[in-house]
Amino acid sequence: MQNKANRNEFDRIARYFAPLAASFPGAFGLKDDAAVISPSAGAEFVVTTDTIVAGVHYIGDEPPALIAAKLLRVNLSDLAAMGARPRAFTLNIALPKAIDDAWLEAFAAGLGADQEKLGITLIGGDSVSTPGPAVFTLTAFGEVEQGKAVRRAGARPGDLIFVSGSIGDGAFGLRVLQEQIEGLSESDSAFLIDRYRLPQPRLDLGRNLPDLAHAAADVSDGLAADLGHIALASGVRAKIQAAKVPLSAAARNAIASRSALLETALTGGDDYELVFCAPAANAPAIEALSRETGLPITQIGEIEAGDGVSVLDQDGASIILSRPGFSHE
Amino acid sequence: MQNKANRNEFDRIARYFAPLAASFPGAFGLKDDAAVISPSAGAEFVVTTDTIVAGVHYIGDEPPALIAAKLLRVNLSDLAAMGARPRAFTLNIALPKAIDDAWLEAFAAGLGADQEKLGITLIGGDSVSTPGPAVFTLTAFGEVEQGKAVRRAGARPGDLIFVSGSIGDGAFGLRVLQEQIEGLSESDSAFLIDRYRLPQPRLDLGRNLPDLAHAAADVSDGLAADLGHIALASGVRAKIQAAKVPLSAAARNAIASRSALLETALTGGDDYELVFCAPAANAPAIEALSRETGLPITQIGEIEAGDGVSVLDQDGASIILSRPGFSHE
Repeated sequence: MQNKANRNEFDRIARYFAPLAASFPGAFGLKDDAAVISPSAGAEFVVTTDTIVAGVHYIGDEPPALIAAKLLRVNLSDLAAMGARPRAFTLNIALPKAIDDAWLEAFAAGLGADQEKLGITLIGGDSVSTPGPAVFTLTAFGEVEQGKAVRRAGARPGDLIFVSGSIGDGAFGLRVLQEQIEGLSESDSAFLIDRYRLPQPRLDLGRNLPDLAHAAADVSDGLAADLGHIALASGVRAKIQAAKVPLSAAARNAIASRSALLETALTGGDDYELVFCAPAANAPAIEALSRETGLPITQIGEIEAGDGVSVLDQDGASIILSRPGFSHE
Repeated sequence: MQNKANRNEFDRIARYFAPLAASFPGAFGLKDDAAVISPSAGAEFVVTTDTIVAGVHYIGDEPPALIAAKLLRVNLSDLAAMGARPRAFTLNIALPKAIDDAWLEAFAAGLGADQEKLGITLIGGDSVSTPGPAVFTLTAFGEVEQGKAVRRAGARPGDLIFVSGSIGDGAFGLRVLQEQIEGLSESDSAFLIDRYRLPQPRLDLGRNLPDLAHAAADVSDGLAADLGHIALASGVRAKIQAAKVPLSAAARNAIASRSALLETALTGGDDYELVFCAPAANAPAIEALSRETGLPITQIGEIEAGDGVSVLDQDGASIILSRPGFSHE
């Protein structure tokens, strides 16, 4: 947080953000021209970055702490998908005048609590003003043993396809907020909204992926789309059985009352689960990891020769997805 | 450039930005969840980041290639100030609908030409849409030998203060564009505007700073302010002689017709020169480096015990700066 800041921005950085960088010597208290950082011995860096815009990527009236936490977590989900452990991040904020100190204090407090919980530290950034909506960019640095990053490319015919947690909750949560899904119980609605607002990056699974998986992605664009990315990058076909895709009780209740929502679950995105491809020989180790971490990991299909993504119903017939998977925005 | 992009954004990334990342294997063609990067043997990373907003940090009608080049160069100036060599960068763009493919193509072409010239490579980023003005964030990674980064802290009483190039041109160029400075020759105006629009990061000097300097900063907030940052971080006083501050012929012409502009030169910012503090014993090596690189390096003062920045006129009297140096925004 260096150049071209006016005094108000210097003050805000010193007050709200410098404490988040205090434990990292190479951040120099956010007061120097840049930060200095080295990977641990034998490791290399994995770098990912996301930008969110008020009114586009979040509604705008969410608690600031939740906006901060989600921005951090979607980046950590990308690190987990590469098999990396979180290390540090930079934050760039462009703020309209309407954002006051109380809002920013709550945002920074949420970020501080979440970085503590998730084991990552702020090391730099920038703060500017804008006449438009708030724009936040977070760039996260993770570490992985040299040469061990798990890519989208690498899936091989015969690999099994696994997915963590449950799929569709995030997309349903957004639609509950938009009142496109109604009639759910209060607790189901609250569960789905929480899943949309506060993703759980699968860091414990992620750091084990280099030893287990040939390929991985996080489920952000939608399960079908992200599997499609793996299939394309690997030059293979991903075949999944829709009935095997893990659903939460709340998502099952939603689909029970409107069956078209099954497709929403498969294509909706905002899951921040991990989908990965591993040889069958690793299935016992994956099962053991699931037990150990308490995170459900479900086999949903197989990799075969070919291309694209094939989703089969219970009779083995292909389900045609009307929207195979890019997120609306 | 991964999450939550719609098809148009995927296409734009593939068409305009993926070619800029083609030479860097760990960028994975901008198609994976993250990039992978390691510092060279014995080196560590220096990380800096800047955000610019249309209508705030640039006027808006500049050629897109110049906007891209300036954004890259201000970050490289920070790397140079730390003694680092450029290595890679990420780019996040939030674009309004009004920005069409032709604009973006020109922006990417400018970035591509400049990254080639300056020896750095795009490795990742994000592209989103915004209902507000365009917002760009660039995060640059440089390399420095482990433990050799040049900080703002480190200046010692007895050090000489040096500055590269000439000071004030950027601030004057902005004011020529804003028609606050008039009556200059066409060539003087063009020179100053170019200095404002296209900073020259002092990379050759920067990479030599670890062997020469105790402390350094780039001059972005204004010479007085950036020297103030060094003085504060180092716990010393910076004393400079105003008459020694190097001025271009165009800046001298502007000051000749309006003497108050001398203060603008000392406080205006946007110079992207390097100011650094070095022991007197290194003066011959600094002079040799200046000859070798063709970059003027001028001694403008000394570090002494105390605090703050003291600017002396030709009679040794203190000049009181009305605005010791934060940039307006």
